[in-house]
This record gives sequence, C-alpha cells and structure tokens, in this order.
Amino acid sequence: MMKRRSGDRENRRKGKSLFPASPLPRFSGSRFSVPGFKAAGIACGIKKNNKKDLALIFSEAPATVAGLFTTNKIKAAPVLVDMQRIKKGVCHAVIINSGNANACTGKKGMTAAVKTVTLIEKALDIKKGLAMVSSTGVIGELLPVVNGIEKGIPKLIDALSEEGWDNAAKAIMTTDAFPKIAFEKGKIDGKEVSMLGIAKGAGMICPDMATMLAYIVTDAAVEQNALQNALKNAVNKSFNSITVDGDTSTNDTVLALANGKAGNRPVGSKQYAVSSKDYKTFCGMLEKVCLKLAHMIVRDGEGATKFLEIKVKGAKKEADAKNIALVIANSLLVKTAFFGEDANWGRIMAAIGRAGVDIIGEKISIYFNNTPVVKNGSGTSRDKEADKVIKKKDICLTVDLGMGKAGATVWTTDLTYEYVKINAAYRT
Amino acid sequence: MMKRRSGDRENRRKGKSLFPASPLPRFSGSRFSVPGFKAAGIACGIKKNNKKDLALIFSEAPATVAGLFTTNKIKAAPVLVDMQRIKKGVCHAVIINSGNANACTGKKGMTAAVKTVTLIEKALDIKKGLAMVSSTGVIGELLPVVNGIEKGIPKLIDALSEEGWDNAAKAIMTTDAFPKIAFEKGKIDGKEVSMLGIAKGAGMICPDMATMLAYIVTDAAVEQNALQNALKNAVNKSFNSITVDGDTSTNDTVLALANGKAGNRPVGSKQYAVSSKDYKTFCGMLEKVCLKLAHMIVRDGEGATKFLEIKVKGAKKEADAKNIALVIANSLLVKTAFFGEDANWGRIMAAIGRAGVDIIGEKISIYFNNTPVVKNGSGTSRDKEADKVIKKKDICLTVDLGMGKAGATVWTTDLTYEYVKINAAYRT
Repeated sequence: MMKRRSGDRENRRKGKSLFPASPLPRFSGSRFSVPGFKAAGIACGIKKNNKKDLALIFSEAPATVAGLFTTNKIKAAPVLVDMQRIKKGVCHAVIINSGNANACTGKKGMTAAVKTVTLIEKALDIKKGLAMVSSTGVIGELLPVVNGIEKGIPKLIDALSEEGWDNAAKAIMTTDAFPKIAFEKGKIDGKEVSMLGIAKGAGMICPDMATMLAYIVTDAAVEQNALQNALKNAVNKSFNSITVDGDTSTNDTVLALANGKAGNRPVGSKQYAVSSKDYKTFCGMLEKVCLKLAHMIVRDGEGATKFLEIKVKGAKKEADAKNIALVIANSLLVKTAFFGEDANWGRIMAAIGRAGVDIIGEKISIYFNNTPVVKNGSGTSRDKEADKVIKKKDICLTVDLGMGKAGATVWTTDLTYEYVKINAAYRT
Repeated sequence: MMKRRSGDRENRRKGKSLFPASPLPRFSGSRFSVPGFKAAGIACGIKKNNKKDLALIFSEAPATVAGLFTTNKIKAAPVLVDMQRIKKGVCHAVIINSGNANACTGKKGMTAAVKTVTLIEKALDIKKGLAMVSSTGVIGELLPVVNGIEKGIPKLIDALSEEGWDNAAKAIMTTDAFPKIAFEKGKIDGKEVSMLGIAKGAGMICPDMATMLAYIVTDAAVEQNALQNALKNAVNKSFNSITVDGDTSTNDTVLALANGKAGNRPVGSKQYAVSSKDYKTFCGMLEKVCLKLAHMIVRDGEGATKFLEIKVKGAKKEADAKNIALVIANSLLVKTAFFGEDANWGRIMAAIGRAGVDIIGEKISIYFNNTPVVKNGSGTSRDKEADKVIKKKDICLTVDLGMGKAGATVWTTDLTYEYVKINAAYRT
C-alpha cells in the first residue's frame, strides 16, 4: 500500500495541460544534438507498463560541470552523492532514474546511489568518481538497483546516440504531460557552439512543485567558475522565477556540462576575462535555454488553463520587485480569479501590500496586458477591456510601483479544480 | 461592474462549511453579556437584500483599549484612523460596517472613515476621539456614509442592548457561513469577571484569508500595557496560528476593551504586578476566547471538509516549531492529500525540509492522531491504521523533530474543489 502513495506523484493521474504555445514548441523527435555528447532513455522496470525510467547523458571526454541542488533540508541520497562529486569540477556521465526518488531511505538509500554511479562508471569504463546520479519519483521506497538499474545499464549504453535526447527527456518524466527540451546555437570566440537542455517538472507557483530536474550540455569551452556563475544567474532568472525560493523538493537538481569540443578559448579563462562579450553571449544562451525549459514547466502546471507573466517594475531594488511578483503569483485568490476570468485587482493590491516591501499604495498602477485597471492606487473603470484581456490564454500582468527603476518577472498559471482533483486523487 | 468584484468576497457564493464541532458550539441566540457593555447589529443598506451590515459596540464608560492591526502595507482608511486613535489608550464605542472595506479609496476614503467616527460620537454624545471604526467588504469602492451609515445610526443606537452580540456578530460577516462568538468567565482579585468576543473571517492557511476582525470585551479592570501584552500573546497563539505571519488583508483588526466594571484592582498595576496569578488568569481567559474564535474561523474555511491540528514538538525553539507547522499547514499537496484521505507522509517530510529550520531527517517521527507513520525518518508500514485515521473529520498531525523540547500548534483545513469554485466564481 505505502508503495504507491508516499512522496512524489508518480502514479498520479495527470490533468490536461496547457499546450506550449509558440515560441515554446512541443518537442517532437530528435532534432537536436551537441558535438561530443550522447544521450539515451530506456525502460528498466522501475515504472510500470514498460514506461521509460532510466536516462543517461554521456560526454566523450570529461566535461566541466556546474550544479545547483535543492535547498530542502531533507536531501535525497543522489543529491548528497552529487554534492560531493561536483567538487571535482568534472563530470563524464549522468545517470537519472524516474519512478523512485531514493529519498527518506536512510543508509540503504546512500548505498543504492553509490552503487548506481559505480555500476555506470564500470559499464562505461570511465574514471571512478566522474559519474553523477539523479532520482525522481516516490519518496520512502528503496531504489531497485539490482533488479532495475543494473539490469538496464547494458541496454541503456547500447541506446546511447547523439540524437538520444528525446528518449532521455521522456525517461526523466514523472507527472509531466510532455517531455521538455530546448536548444540554442551561438558564436563564441569565432566558433559555432551548441547548447541543449532537458528538464522535468510540472507545477505552478505556490508550494509543492514536483521535483525539478534539468541538465544542460554545451560544446563550448568554459572554465568551471564561469560556468557556475553563469548557471546561478540563469537559474535565478528562470527556474527560480517560476517558484518561491526555498520551495524545493528533496531531489531538485540542475547540472550544466561543457565539454569544450567547439574549440573556443575557454570562456572565463584569465587571458580572456569574464567580462568579455563571449561570456555575455554564453550567459545569454544559458539563460534562454533555462527560460524555455522553465516556461515549459509552467505550461505543464497541473490542470492549468492560463499562462501568466507577472511583471513588477518601478521598484527600488530588483529583490523587492521579485518578492512582490512571487507573492502575487503565489496568491490563491489571484490564481483562482484568473481561472474564473475575473479581473479582480483588489486581490492583487492586497497581495502587493503583504509582500513585506515598502510601497506607497497611491503610487501603484496595474495593467492587464496594456489595459490599465489601477492608476494611483485606485480603479480606472476600464473593466470592460480588462474583461476581454482576462479571457486570453496568455496574459501579462504588469504592476508599476512608481518607486524606482528596478524590476523582475515571474511566470505562473491559474489554479483550477483540476489541480485539486489531481493532487487529492492520485492513488485512484 | 467593478462594484461587485474588487477585493473582498462580499457577494460570493459560499460553500458548505464545516459545522463547528464541540466544544465549539454553533452560536444560537443571545446567551451572553458583559456588564457595562452593549452591542447592536442592523441593516443600513450597504449590503443588498436587507442583510445586516452595521454593528456597534458601546461601553457605558470609556474603556481601556488594546489593539493589533494588519501588517499589510496597503492599509484601509479605518485601520489608519484606529491606529491613531488607539494611542489614547481609551475607547468608548466601536462602529463596524460590512459590505465595503473602504480600502484603496484614497483621500475620500479617509474622509469617509473620519466622518463615520464623528457621526457616531455625536449620536452617542461621547467625547471626541473616543470612537473607533472598522470596515470589511469590497475593496476600491467609496463607503456610502451619507446614504448608508448616517441614515442607519439612529436605528443602530436604538438597537443597542446588553444581549445584542448575536446581531453584532452577524452584522460584521462577509463570506462567513456562521456568526462567531465566544464567552469565558473567571475570577480575578476575588471578583467574578466576564469576557466576550465576536469575530468574522473565513479561511484556511495559505495566502488570502478574507479580512479577519475580532472584538473582545471584558468587565475586568486591566492597565493598558498589560492589556496590550496579553492581547499580543493571545493573538500569537490563536489568530496568528491559523495564518502565516504577514498573510494579512488590508483591514485586519483585533481590539480588546476592558471597562473595569467588575471592580477588581487593575491587572498590571504597580501595586499588583504583571507576574501575578490574576494576570495569568486574565491572559488565560483572553487566550481561550481568541482560540475559540480562531478555531471557528478555520472551521468556516471555504469548502473545507476537515479540521486539522498540526502539532510540532521536539524543536530547539518555539519559532522553529511554528515555522514548520505553518509550512506543513500551508502546503497545497498536504492539504489536497487530506481532502483525498491519503496518508501521504512523503509530502509532509518534503514540507518539513523546506521550512528553513535545521532538522535531521533521521530524527523525525510523524503521527496521525496516535498512529506513528514515520519513525527515524522512514515509514512504519502502519498505513492501514493511518487510512482509518485520515477518514475522520478532526485529525491531529503530530511531528516530533527529536531535536529539543519546544513546540507549537497551528490549525488549518484541507483544500477542496469547493475552495477553487467559490473563489473563481464569486461573481456568478
């Protein structure tokens, strides 16, 4: 009994999700590859019904690696393993299973995670310590290493291909309605470079996103520090702008691997400052890939019917703007009002006021797309126009605080009957 | 159009609420009174369909007053008026309207609030500056003073009676399914003293409680400082334990009035220390009254089907315990799991881990009533028993962190389809 209920929402029924609108194409087949990287996704029996549940990302040569991990105090065993291993700054392969989170599993869970990386290192014949591991799925159950992962590894390695990303993206899904993949090309130091990311996660703001995993690979050469800083910045503006800071699961992981095969001088190296144009190009690419993946996660929000961009400007500090944007996006009353297509600006004003930021009510303006509904803290009587805007599927809510020049944007969805249904009834 | 939609949920359809279980009797008629106080509640036309929307609390003599107000940066005009007036430490009358929050109404709103207190002072022939005012209802609309409150005042004063509390409790309701009133008796300094509280509010934890108003009157004699401290403590353990700190509306107000008619030596006076047994008795009474009212607000949670007590013990500090209890109570996944009657402890573990408190997963135990579902951070396989417990209407979830001796308790409800329906569709 306990097997099918604890933790993540593996076996849960999934509601209809928002179809990703352009420019966020639904992934269809293996169109992308990055020189020097291969990927695979297969079924090894952790999930039922022969669903894909084991993925592998392999770099021909050891790649520079950067990573960010859950801030949850309850960390799954694979997260603890990766947090140790990332200190080396180099990674050769990442193995990821879905269907089991290997969280709240004590010492046996640690043994299982270590066994997993050891097995893949041997099978790939790579140096000890250079494989990393992630898990996502049910909390509280022991990971089936011998009868699942170990048996699956030969098939997994056989399946490795430069175009294996679609299968890898599918194999890391849990409650996701669709696989998530993003791709960018750019020019760095005169060389053409590629970047590809896959992610899993389905959620809207407010506690309780499912585990979020993302892996980004690039053939650009990047120094480890520069890669870590670029990743931190990109995650802040993407994944951390679709969730509240600290609102993390036991397994959240973002890894970026750069194998240098493009042949550019390493971004961030001494002769070649971090402030360079190429570093900015690299950061821009990474931010785009992360943002595309983050938007797909929002569009996959459980039962969501609307994609909401919450833009706060006119703040004194960026952190103030982000705080307010997150409180609005996190407000159940605001989210249900959007679901009900009710341009209820009073709920937005009340949310702004409780963000703990110094604001002046009489300076606030609020827009639904381009329609002003609040000016100087009072209603504009433009509600007929607002009524039209709120019927759209993609809506931009802009709040101008009138206090300064800083701003921030976050993304979320509405809150629907479907969300409650999915999360209340996932065992049935 | 804007009139019926902004802000509070005045005209919203109300879902079926949890019937208050004993020992929280549903209020039925005017059974309670406190010497020296009168109350009234009438309809003055702010609400439609001749519903009660204007209340008055009157003390024969000026009473010592203590108060706590919303921490929302957007404060309604009546809150700003009261925050000034409470500095006097004395209050003779409180007038409260429902159906209109007088929030986000600019200078005209301030004029309306000041006009309201001036009118009631004149009509009652009391000293200027000794009346206070609260409003609750729609945000963003001008309060109808001349055609509502002013016309209603004579009828309101006519209706004043020692047993008028039921009508007052009804007149401050907005989306509430039932009026909320609590009563306590006790002995202070050898004198029998009474305490009565009324409140409005309907909500569950997680952003967006409707405005919470509470008024507590007592014939005990209490010094202003002692009253303020006692109120702060009582609110912390009651109203602030059913909501997240800072999760406040534009109008939240709690006032306590003590008229001294019982004839006890003033609690908290110099000759008669704050550490006295009588101060403790008084604090205990105030805490009980506030807790009863707070529990009624939780039971009135929109669409709620379960009343949940979340008890965290074994913490190093009380603040840690309260943080964790609030994060659990605030988790949509936990709340929907209770609605779905799914003893999903993985969701509870993940919530504990993201509260920002230093904990050790392996020390945690979790109980559903008396059934242990987690011991030393891992599942107990007692899920059949847990399945029975989770079908009950009143459930106590206990988390033992195993770190220390501090604890805290908060109360909440499950999250249901009905909540989304009510809040999405309140205009229809």
